Amino acid sequence: MKYLYTNIISSFVLDEKLKIIDEGKESALKKKHKTEPLPQDKLPQILLLFKDKKYYQEFYQKNLQLTKQSIKQSVNEDQLIIQAISNINELDRINNMLAKRLREWYSLYLPELSQQISNHEQFAYLVANKNKGQLMKEIKVEETMGSELESAHVDEMVILAKQILNNYQLRKKHEEYLRNVMKIYCPNFLELAGVTIGAKLIEMGKSLKHLAMLPASTIQLLGAEKALFRHIKSGSKSPKYGLIVNHPLVQQAKDKKGKAARMLADKLSLCARLDYFKGEFKAKEMFKELEAKLK
Amino acid sequence: MKYLYTNIISSFVLDEKLKIIDEGKESALKKKHKTEPLPQDKLPQILLLFKDKKYYQEFYQKNLQLTKQSIKQSVNEDQLIIQAISNINELDRINNMLAKRLREWYSLYLPELSQQISNHEQFAYLVANKNKGQLMKEIKVEETMGSELESAHVDEMVILAKQILNNYQLRKKHEEYLRNVMKIYCPNFLELAGVTIGAKLIEMGKSLKHLAMLPASTIQLLGAEKALFRHIKSGSKSPKYGLIVNHPLVQQAKDKKGKAARMLADKLSLCARLDYFKGEFKAKEMFKELEAKLK
Repeated sequence: MKYLYTNIISSFVLDEKLKIIDEGKESALKKKHKTEPLPQDKLPQILLLFKDKKYYQEFYQKNLQLTKQSIKQSVNEDQLIIQAISNINELDRINNMLAKRLREWYSLYLPELSQQISNHEQFAYLVANKNKGQLMKEIKVEETMGSELESAHVDEMVILAKQILNNYQLRKKHEEYLRNVMKIYCPNFLELAGVTIGAKLIEMGKSLKHLAMLPASTIQLLGAEKALFRHIKSGSKSPKYGLIVNHPLVQQAKDKKGKAARMLADKLSLCARLDYFKGEFKAKEMFKELEAKLK
Repeated sequence: MKYLYTNIISSFVLDEKLKIIDEGKESALKKKHKTEPLPQDKLPQILLLFKDKKYYQEFYQKNLQLTKQSIKQSVNEDQLIIQAISNINELDRINNMLAKRLREWYSLYLPELSQQISNHEQFAYLVANKNKGQLMKEIKVEETMGSELESAHVDEMVILAKQILNNYQLRKKHEEYLRNVMKIYCPNFLELAGVTIGAKLIEMGKSLKHLAMLPASTIQLLGAEKALFRHIKSGSKSPKYGLIVNHPLVQQAKDKKGKAARMLADKLSLCARLDYFKGEFKAKEMFKELEAKLK
């Protein structure tokens, strides 16, 4: 009676006393020997065999290699998308912080500018590219309450403004990158959700696969977890939408936002499934359909 | 009986019925008329005069102008220092956020780098300037668990790394700027406290003037307000030092940190006073003295 046993190192033929009598490729061994499969209850004994010096090192190395390989292969678009969108979120917070600082700082020099220009990026652009005289003309201020400062002081504000512009630039690059990745990885989802909302939904759902498995009603509420748990705990009103409230179709729906969110989430769930199972491109029609229904 | 009355517009000579009979420069009027100062109780009546059309507009404009001027002149080095050090603090937080993100992101590609390089700036430098092959040689890793990624993916990490380096650069520029400003504004304080700690103390004390008025024991505890109020409220141990614990003299004192902090605060308080009242430069000697005493 001979047994055939295969593990990550190789295949082995064992005799009745469970001593190894041959090793090699499974197919080759099968030709040479007449073997039976190993009974389950003998397995512990055999594993002990591989603790001996001859095999242990090989066994260990092989195992390590396989683990490394599967870690290597575990990186997929989901993770790349999640890193990029997380960084976009952080850049948004950062730009907010720095722009507020720049406004406060520059207001020592020309307070009227911050009053008139409410957009952060535009504010940074003006500070970075124009001097006080040009700015006063631009915002039609003849006399400023700001102090006269030497250029050494103003220079610091200008380089901060330039850095803020660079941050906005970086954010745009990330967004472009996301669009390129998602165009291949999840074209339907990208088309219907848009870059930012789409990527954020993948971030919250952890992966496209997981999103494809979620019911539409969960996608509808992703990002509204706090309100949802408050509803469950204390019976306050249940939320009608999460992150997707920012989607243009929901925004335009005015007093029917709840309905719009539900319909959009339905289609988003379909798109995630289409993309995950490599289906055809249907998002454009879906978008039009939703638009028509919500008018 | 004629009265002389002066306000921000001009000087006026009034008759007994409090009608304006002449106006001009105070010195000129005094030569032309024999006047008495206006009794306090007649002031309300006179103020009504300036509500009439002829004066009101002028009065208002002059007032506005004066207010604007005093706002203009209220900007001083304190405020500039506070803005710059606040931005340095924010940049520190930002770099921390972005560097952590970069580490997580880049670890999909070459996780061994983040394990070996603990300094954020160095990490960003390596990612920005070397490719995977060079880095693997540099950190002596033959096989990586990171995934093979196309350059489109890696590029996003590289531009993030470059932006982080720019932020560090900006921080250095701000620090240099602070050093230049403080060298003129508060040379003693700068010499003894150092740029960052000095500027942070000014930020916490609101101004050099205020710092000069504070007792040394308060300077010792600036930045430890939380612990101090906990001590007052609940009788826990009183804090021995605030922000100045980061000062090299306190750091080196090991088991005598409390004593070192007290002595340093004493001298810092002196320095703030010397600088505020434009005294001589003595900080270098003070530093040596402290160093000798704390050995």
